[in-house]
This record gives sequence, structure tokens and C-alpha cells, in this order.
Amino acid sequence: MSSPDFSAYGHLHARAREIALLNSTAALLYWDQQTFMPTKALDFRAEQLSYFNGKAHAMFTAPEVGDWISACEDAGLADGPDVEMGTNVRGWRRHYARATRLPTELVERNERAKIHANAAWEKARDASDFSAFAPHLKTVFGLTRQMADLWGYEASPYDALLEGFEPGARAAELAALFDVLRPAVGGLLGPAVERSARVPADLLAGHYPAAAQQAFNAEVAAAIGFDFEAGGIATTTHPFCSGVAPGDCRLTTRYDEENFLVSLYGVMHEAGHGMYEQGLPPGAYGTPAGTAVSLGIHESQSRLWENQVGRGREFWEHWLPRAAHYFPHLTRRTPEELFAAVNRVRPSFIRVEADQVTYDLHIILRFGLERRILDGELAIRDVPAAWNEEFEKSLGLKVSDDAHGCLQDIHWSEGLIGYFPTYTLGNLNAAQLFRRALADRPALPGELAAGRYGGLLGWLREKVHQQGERFLPGKLIEQATGEPTRVEYYLEGLREKFTQ
Amino acid sequence: MSSPDFSAYGHLHARAREIALLNSTAALLYWDQQTFMPTKALDFRAEQLSYFNGKAHAMFTAPEVGDWISACEDAGLADGPDVEMGTNVRGWRRHYARATRLPTELVERNERAKIHANAAWEKARDASDFSAFAPHLKTVFGLTRQMADLWGYEASPYDALLEGFEPGARAAELAALFDVLRPAVGGLLGPAVERSARVPADLLAGHYPAAAQQAFNAEVAAAIGFDFEAGGIATTTHPFCSGVAPGDCRLTTRYDEENFLVSLYGVMHEAGHGMYEQGLPPGAYGTPAGTAVSLGIHESQSRLWENQVGRGREFWEHWLPRAAHYFPHLTRRTPEELFAAVNRVRPSFIRVEADQVTYDLHIILRFGLERRILDGELAIRDVPAAWNEEFEKSLGLKVSDDAHGCLQDIHWSEGLIGYFPTYTLGNLNAAQLFRRALADRPALPGELAAGRYGGLLGWLREKVHQQGERFLPGKLIEQATGEPTRVEYYLEGLREKFTQ
Repeated sequence: MSSPDFSAYGHLHARAREIALLNSTAALLYWDQQTFMPTKALDFRAEQLSYFNGKAHAMFTAPEVGDWISACEDAGLADGPDVEMGTNVRGWRRHYARATRLPTELVERNERAKIHANAAWEKARDASDFSAFAPHLKTVFGLTRQMADLWGYEASPYDALLEGFEPGARAAELAALFDVLRPAVGGLLGPAVERSARVPADLLAGHYPAAAQQAFNAEVAAAIGFDFEAGGIATTTHPFCSGVAPGDCRLTTRYDEENFLVSLYGVMHEAGHGMYEQGLPPGAYGTPAGTAVSLGIHESQSRLWENQVGRGREFWEHWLPRAAHYFPHLTRRTPEELFAAVNRVRPSFIRVEADQVTYDLHIILRFGLERRILDGELAIRDVPAAWNEEFEKSLGLKVSDDAHGCLQDIHWSEGLIGYFPTYTLGNLNAAQLFRRALADRPALPGELAAGRYGGLLGWLREKVHQQGERFLPGKLIEQATGEPTRVEYYLEGLREKFTQ
Repeated sequence: MSSPDFSAYGHLHARAREIALLNSTAALLYWDQQTFMPTKALDFRAEQLSYFNGKAHAMFTAPEVGDWISACEDAGLADGPDVEMGTNVRGWRRHYARATRLPTELVERNERAKIHANAAWEKARDASDFSAFAPHLKTVFGLTRQMADLWGYEASPYDALLEGFEPGARAAELAALFDVLRPAVGGLLGPAVERSARVPADLLAGHYPAAAQQAFNAEVAAAIGFDFEAGGIATTTHPFCSGVAPGDCRLTTRYDEENFLVSLYGVMHEAGHGMYEQGLPPGAYGTPAGTAVSLGIHESQSRLWENQVGRGREFWEHWLPRAAHYFPHLTRRTPEELFAAVNRVRPSFIRVEADQVTYDLHIILRFGLERRILDGELAIRDVPAAWNEEFEKSLGLKVSDDAHGCLQDIHWSEGLIGYFPTYTLGNLNAAQLFRRALADRPALPGELAAGRYGGLLGWLREKVHQQGERFLPGKLIEQATGEPTRVEYYLEGLREKFTQ
């Protein structure tokens, strides 16, 4: 081993910081497009985004970057004593290997295909006409399969896709988890629905002014630990969280004045993502050591705050009086009533509106279909029938039209195949992390009932946020909880909440 | 003359478009900084802005750009039959000559200094503590003087600064105009104040909810011709207008719930700027042919809509019923009362709240101080005392604290030295343009009284907006009105409105 090559590392670090400036700018351009940009600015904005994304890609895939990484590896930095350096060198290698496998021509063809597929999907969904989307979906899956083959895999092309969202995850392992989860959730569903049916439907009926929702949500978000000096909340149709820069994490939400839970849990969910971004080491911004490691880990943070905390027993003990301050008609409700109302279970068609029990059934269905299509076992034209058949088997509902079935999600039209399972991974890891935090911190239930969240957040900061990409997701969960991702803890929580 | 060098022109055009992508991004980053950016994002934002401004500067000052411009000039394109090409080649030459005088390092240093000066200014103003801002102000004036010396000038370093805001203008010429204006306005002040004192102080007293102001302002802005599909209005402490991209012009304003005139005239003013931006040839975005020629011309547009139209006799004849729709207590007022109330004259401390008569006295004071600081005749530490002395001489008021004195404006903290006189130039040109439009279009008073603004906007589009940088500002005014900028028309208007 030669002496550490700090000059190659320095070059990489400087390059990463410059790319981060561009990526951060692209993130802000996208946020602005979703929030304040006027319609006539669209063409120029598209040009701008494609310019910055292209520049960032070219800067990272340049041959000298590969040489610098090799020099760092030759000098032993990937596994040396400096944790941050090691994290960065290993991360850069992983990202570089993946980014340089695809010819530019294929990337561009794929970008164009996605633009057309996305436009076609919007129209097809509005008209509930799968046939108008089918040729585009075929193209997208075809190109995705081509890319998977170029990225490479051992057991399944799906693995190559997963690697982009959940590095280290394997389709077979996920399938094994889901094979336990699905029947178990199915078994819970009947009793949970029956119990929910006893909760009066109009328990929370009333008017919830958007301004009051904003104020209440901001209070909750600040209390759980979202730093408003390093972020904010704007309004969009499709809520999201974007860490646009160090010290700048933007959440968005939408308001339903008949139902304040949409924005409240939306904000708790996005704030969970946001606190992960805010908890990354700020000095390492733009390098693997300062980057969230995967979608599944990201989702474990949002689901933990939304479901484990926000839909937990203790939550409304503390928050009902504050909610009643903003929405006076809630004064006559009890914390138990709120707990019941926010945990109502009922099979429904749309994934993003699903309750905690049925949610994963939506995911497992998509995971199964994606694998079958990718493996050539399911033809695109047969997707609606397969979807509807699986849906009825799994959720007991007959899908009436494709807009409420296989056309409901934007993901496939954007080439995001292999993305869905990270939602369920997030659920499993959220439960497992929460359980471990409870074990490490016996005072936690009391703290939550008192509205004190610093202990929990501190635990997550240390175990997850500050780690950046130091460990791949599977290893990170093992380090934090003492064992790999399991289904049991999540199921225990569901059983406890929905059947006892 | 050789045959036109279209290849050099094509290179220049492509380069200009690429620089426009960066400049547009910097403009959005700045707008976002003023509106939604959280405080902890400041350092990274400063780095980002300095990066893009530095890149844009480097791309435009590259030696090949000079070669391309020379090739275009050698081929006769600067004065050839193609107006757009000629405008661009002459504009690029002018900008290139100026931009290549500064080393990139100085440009970047200046950008960073401004970001920090701006943050310090905000705090210093809030605390009315000049000493906290003084070191930043010293740095900014120091860097500005350095740049003036590098840009070069014949008579005064102030001329080098003016060239960046009002190409072709000279400090001595402005001083000559101001020497006529100042005593003439001073002479009007007494009678105007006396007349205003007869207008009941509580004529418009009442509560004006911000949401109703927003709705009314949007109606007025749309009526005068601001295109909301190509722009919008956000809230900031210090209102501004930024043409961030083609089809994307952002106005900002602030709301005083005791006084709706602050936001109304703020929006009319900024919409005047915005309509100039929206009226530039969109295909020429990022090139001189598609760029506003100067701040003084820009200000002539905002002042024309704010003061000539918005504070004109006809305005409230049309708009009072709509205002009373949003603010019902105005139902008992007459258009004449509104006209009197919006033209109240009273010396006050804050420039942006000043009436039309005293406004230019604020400007002339700043113009004088800037020249003295730049010439080394006035030390930064003596600025508050000098300000207060001049202020009392000119407006007859004793400045109680620096927040109401030399700390009130954002400009110096942003390195905008030499900018203030363009406001008064704008006033003069607004009056001269409006007078000419009235002469060209006898139906105009009737149109304005009926709330029809298309005729006036069309005249301005043709005479000013569509010209881009074709003519330098002095020449543009001559082309549009038949004579160079004069003080007389503006004074006539003031006399007519305030003393008759």
C-alpha cells in the first residue's frame, strides 16, 4: 500500500462540491416549478434543468474522476482509518460504476421516452384508458430492462433496478419478507375493518380552515424537531420533501378543509424526511458521507414520525388540546376517539389514500407485477387484468376502472421501476427502529405523551442521520437495531394497534 | 468589408444563451433568498450565487468572445441592415469592454462581500445600529471604488458606476439636471404641504386585510397589462421586480393593514417594471436585443404606471367602486377625495414612503453622499452625521435614528452605488414619455378614466419595450419623445397636480 493519495481525494472532494452546487440548484428549480413558477416559464425551465443535470452528469462521469477514485483505492483510503474518507471513496466508486455503465445515447433515449410516457400517462389516467398508455409503458419497461442488463445483476434484472433506490437489496430477499407480510396482514384485515366500522364516521366532521391547519402543522413539525430556520413548508398538489441545500430543506403539503388529517400527517411524513436531511452532517453536503443512503431508509424516517409517533396512542394525549385550540369543535372529542379516527381501516383503491393495514398490500401487488413484466412473464397488454385479479385477491375489491387501478401511480411513467418496495421497507424499518429506540430509552412513552421528542430524534440522529452513506441500508439497520430487517416487529405493532 | 461572419455571430449567440441560463438561475436564487429561503441556508446560497456569477463572468470574458465580436464588427454587422444583429453586436462590445476590465477574483470577492453586507445590513437596520453595518459598507465602497478605477472614467469615478446602470449618463450632467430640480421642488414644497394639510388625515382610515389587498392589487395589475401567466407577486420586506426568465417575471410587495396604498402603489410600480420585462422580445432573451437598456428607462416605466397613471386624476374615477368592493368603508368616499389622499405631500424620513414632491430630494441627497464617499471626501463613519445634516437642510426634519436615516435602503448593502439617481431620471422620463403619449393619443384621458390601458401599454411596447438595447437610454428618450431628457415636463406635472 502506498501512502494515502490526498491530492486525488482533494480533487474528488472539490469536484463533488461543485456538482453539489449544480444539483442543489436543480433541486431549487424543481421546487420552484412545483410552487411558484408561472406557466409560461415551463419551456425555459425544462431547458435549464436539462442543462444542469447534463452538466452534473458529465462532470461526474469524466474519466479523471475514475482515475482519482482508483488512486484513492490504491492508497487504501476506501477502508482506511478515516471514516468519512472511506465512506466517500466507497460511495464515489459505487456511484461512478453505475453512472458510467450506460451509453449517453441510451440515457437520452430513455429521458425522451419518459417525457412522452409521462404526458401519455396523464391523459390515459384522466380518460381511464390503458390502451393509450400501453405502448409507452412497453417502451419504458423495454428500456429499463436494457439498462438493467447494462448495469448488471446476478440473480434478477430487478436487482439492478433496486440498486439505484436501495443499494444492496435483492428482489429474492424482499420477496421472502413480503411472503411473510402479505398473509399476516391479510389475516389482520378482517378484524381491523370490523373494529373500524364501530368508530362513528362523523367523529371529526367539521370545517378546518387552511390557515389554521398551517399554524397547527407548523407547531407539530417544530415540536417533533423540524428546524424552520433550515427549512419551510409550501403548498403543492403532490406533497414532497426536498433537501435543496445544507440548511435548506423544503416540505410541501396540500390542504383539505374538510379533513385536517391529510395535511397534518402529510407534514409529519415529509418532516420525517426533512429531519433526516437536516440531520446529515452539514459539512459533508454533496459527498456520500453527507447524503441519505437510500429511499427505504428515508421512508423509514417519514413513516416513523407519521405512523409510529403521529398515529401512536400517546400522540393525541398531548396534541388534542392544541388541535382544539385551532379547531374548536374538537373540544368535545377525547384522545381515544382521535386515536381511533386516525387509525380507521378500510380497503380502498388508491395507494396514497390507504390506511396502515392495507398500504403494504398495494405495494406487494406492484412489486409482483413489476418483476413479472421485467422477466417477460407478463405482457403489457395483460397488466390491467393481472392488476385487477391480484387486487381482488388481496384487498377484496373489484377494480371498476384503470384510473382506480393500474393507471393511478405516476412512477412507471417516470421510469421509476423498482421504487415501490422501498415504501414497505420503510414501514418495516420504521417499526424496527422505533422498537429499538423504546428498548434503549424506557422513558420514551412518557416523553411522547408529554410531547417531548428530543430523545427520540437524538437517537435517530446518532443511529441513522449522521451516518450518511457510511453503511449500505441493510447494514445500517443491523448496526442500529442489532438485526437485519424483519417483518415481525412491524406486524406486532399492527396487531397491537388494530386488533387489541 | 468582408462578407458577414455568421459563424462568429452564431458562436456569440449560443454563448449568450448559455450565460442567460446561468444568469436566470442566479436571478431565481436571489428571488428565493428574499422570499422563501430559510436563514441557515445563507452561506451556501452565497457560495452558489458567487459560483454562477463567476461562471457567467468567465464565460463572457473569455478571449474567444472578444475575437467573435471583432469578427462581427469587421464584417460590418454592428451597423448592418439587420437591426437585431446590430443591437446585439454593439451591446456585446459595450458589455465585453466593461466586463473584461475586472478580474474574476474581484467579481467573486465582491459577490461574497455583498451577501454578507446584505445580511449585516438587515440586522443593523432592525437594531438601528450603524456601527454593525459600517465595516461592511466600507468594504463595499472600497471594492466599488476599485472596480470604478478598473472600468475607467474621464471626469469622475461616479461616471464609471453610472455606466453600469445608465449607459451614457454622466455625473456632471445629472448634477446639472438636479441643480434645476432641487430648488424648483423646494419651492413647490411649502404650498403643496399647506394644501395637503387641508385634506382630512383620517380620510382613508380603516382596516385593510392583506388578503383583500392582494386580490385588489392583482385585479389592478392584470387590468394595466401585467401577465399573470408569465409572472406573479410574492411578499418581501423590500419590494422589487425580477425578470427571472422569459415568461417569468416576479414582483414582490409588502402589506400594511392600516394603509392599502403601500401595497397598491408598490404593485403598480413593480408591475410597471414587470410589463417592460414582459414586453421585451421573448425570442431575444439573454441577448442585448432582448434586454432592458437601463435602470433609468426601467424606472420610467414603473413611475409612469405608479404616478402618472395610478396617482393621476382619472385613476380613481374607474377604480374606487372596485376598491370599495374589497374595502367596504371606502363606499362613502369620492374619486376626488381619493385623488387628494393619494397625493398628500408631507416631508418624511423614508424614501420609499415619500410623496411625489419630496421623493427626488431623498435621491439628490444620496447622490451627493455617494459622490463624496467615492471621492474620499466623506469617511464611512461620518455618513450618519452627514446624512442627518443634509436631510434637515433639504426636508426640514431632524433624523432621530439611523434606521430612519442612512440605514433605510438596501442598495448600498448590495453594492448598488450610482443606482439612486436613476430613480429621479425615471421620474423625469416618465413625465416626458407620458406627455408624448398624450400628444400622440388624444383619446388617452378617456381611456384611463374608463380603466382601459391597452392603448398606453401598446404605445410603450412600441416606443420602449420592444427596442431592447437598440438605443442607449438618452437616445431612446429622444427617439420616443423628440427631445433629450428635460426637467420641465416633470415640474409642470408637479405644479399642475400639487399647486393648482
